[in-house]
Amino acid sequence: MESKNIPFLALFLLIFLFVVSSTTAAPAGKIKARLPCKRLVFYFHDILFNGRNSKNATSAIVGAPAWANRTIMAGQNHFGDLVVFDDPITLDNNLHSTPVGRAQGFYLYDQKDIFTSWLGFSFVFNSTQHKGSINFAGADPIMNKTRDISVVGGTGDFFMSRGIATLMTDAFEGEVYFRLRVDIKLYECW
Amino acid sequence: MESKNIPFLALFLLIFLFVVSSTTAAPAGKIKARLPCKRLVFYFHDILFNGRNSKNATSAIVGAPAWANRTIMAGQNHFGDLVVFDDPITLDNNLHSTPVGRAQGFYLYDQKDIFTSWLGFSFVFNSTQHKGSINFAGADPIMNKTRDISVVGGTGDFFMSRGIATLMTDAFEGEVYFRLRVDIKLYECW
Amino acid sequence: MESKNIPFLALFLLIFLFVVSSTTAAPAGKIKARLPCKRLVFYFHDILFNGRNSKNATSAIVGAPAWANRTIMAGQNHFGDLVVFDDPITLDNNLHSTPVGRAQGFYLYDQKDIFTSWLGFSFVFNSTQHKGSINFAGADPIMNKTRDISVVGGTGDFFMSRGIATLMTDAFEGEVYFRLRVDIKLYECW
Repeated sequence: MESKNIPFLALFLLIFLFVVSSTTAAPAGKIKARLPCKRLVFYFHDILFNGRNSKNATSAIVGAPAWANRTIMAGQNHFGDLVVFDDPITLDNNLHSTPVGRAQGFYLYDQKDIFTSWLGFSFVFNSTQHKGSINFAGADPIMNKTRDISVVGGTGDFFMSRGIATLMTDAFEGEVYFRLRVDIKLYECW
Repeated sequence: MESKNIPFLALFLLIFLFVVSSTTAAPAGKIKARLPCKRLVFYFHDILFNGRNSKNATSAIVGAPAWANRTIMAGQNHFGDLVVFDDPITLDNNLHSTPVGRAQGFYLYDQKDIFTSWLGFSFVFNSTQHKGSINFAGADPIMNKTRDISVVGGTGDFFMSRGIATLMTDAFEGEVYFRLRVDIKLYECW
Repeated sequence: MESKNIPFLALFLLIFLFVVSSTTAAPAGKIKARLPCKRLVFYFHDILFNGRNSKNATSAIVGAPAWANRTIMAGQNHFGDLVVFDDPITLDNNLHSTPVGRAQGFYLYDQKDIFTSWLGFSFVFNSTQHKGSINFAGADPIMNKTRDISVVGGTGDFFMSRGIATLMTDAFEGEVYFRLRVDIKLYECW
């Protein structure tokens, strides 16, 4: 009888170890899979107030260094300009498409020798398709073709989300209009 | 003998599978339980500097669009006003209760056609009850009865926390005083 | 025979429970190990624009309360001053060492009776050693010897990172120069 039970238990132990090692989540510090659990692509459109376009403007300079003012972008690649924005989010790259949400928050320019910015903002949705918000923060070295910032959290449909948003400047017209393509890849979904 | 051991092992296997499946954490991308591991409710009180209340004021406009100034809230629902604050946190809704901590950071108004703000701030505690900080970021559409922002991190007693804070405007007196109720629900505790 | 198998299974059950409890990740709300999966120490150097040092300055006041201006730090412990910075990151405490990256973003002073600040910024790396960014947010009660802020996310080599950064003021020269030592401890690595 013993000679029958021992290999049975040995096999059982093997299966047990395999199941435990494959189903337990990676402890902190181990490599996790880099497959997004949710992916969304949007565009948003920023029209900066320049003293003459108050009707159309979606953003305004609210802080600037001592050597600058709030109706013209500062010299030295706009270093120090702080802009508050409320920009329409669209599904395609057309400014006149029906907005599906608002991109709200601020950006600032923070390098003298090149255009570079830092962003803290949210995508706010309140439609049948999406309800809730996605919160972003991070450095945006504008001159690179694509730049990654962090999704630091979310609410509603995006409850507790974390991930990466890849930004691409889709259009840039002088110092008044730009359009960003935002490829949101969430790696933590709840 | 075998007829006795086999059902024993089968039962054992069942228990084993049940225990493994119920104790392993969800892999990234799967649905996780939405039960807070910690919950805290506080109030904080904001008294905005208006040019005459410098002794009592806990906050001040430090950025504003070109068409506004820093002692009166801007028109168009305060669009572009950026406010730095150091507000007392209390356990009840009484401004004169002993503060248990400080709410410190900034908010800005970022929509022209409705009151909407964006917040980046911390709750800073240094008492026998709580030591450490909770860091918040997110959009606050003020006119909604409740709004959710993200807890993006924490330190000390709130080491590595993540969660949601539900804000409710508990009082609003003109453009000088408001009181927020903050219901903090942490879903990641360490 | 039974008297031989039963204790064997009992021992096996004990081992099984031990292995399961030690290898499964903590479910949300349970205590997790506080060992960093990555640790990095850097210094960064801030030279504030004061109206006369535009060539060397790495930061500038871009927002200030109504009672202050943008070339002198505000009274009351600089309450309300908002500073945008692009500071060199070095491996040692020497301002003139070759920078390994840039610390970019903003800080603000947010308490009247003591020096306290709030930070939102990124470490941006683009060298053979590190590529990517680390994003930080949190309260910095400057007068404490060490202060903890949150690592809220990362990109590139620091993809999806979370952790704590312990700040220490390594030098402070008047209102123009300070140097921070940043001890970054990541507890979530991907």
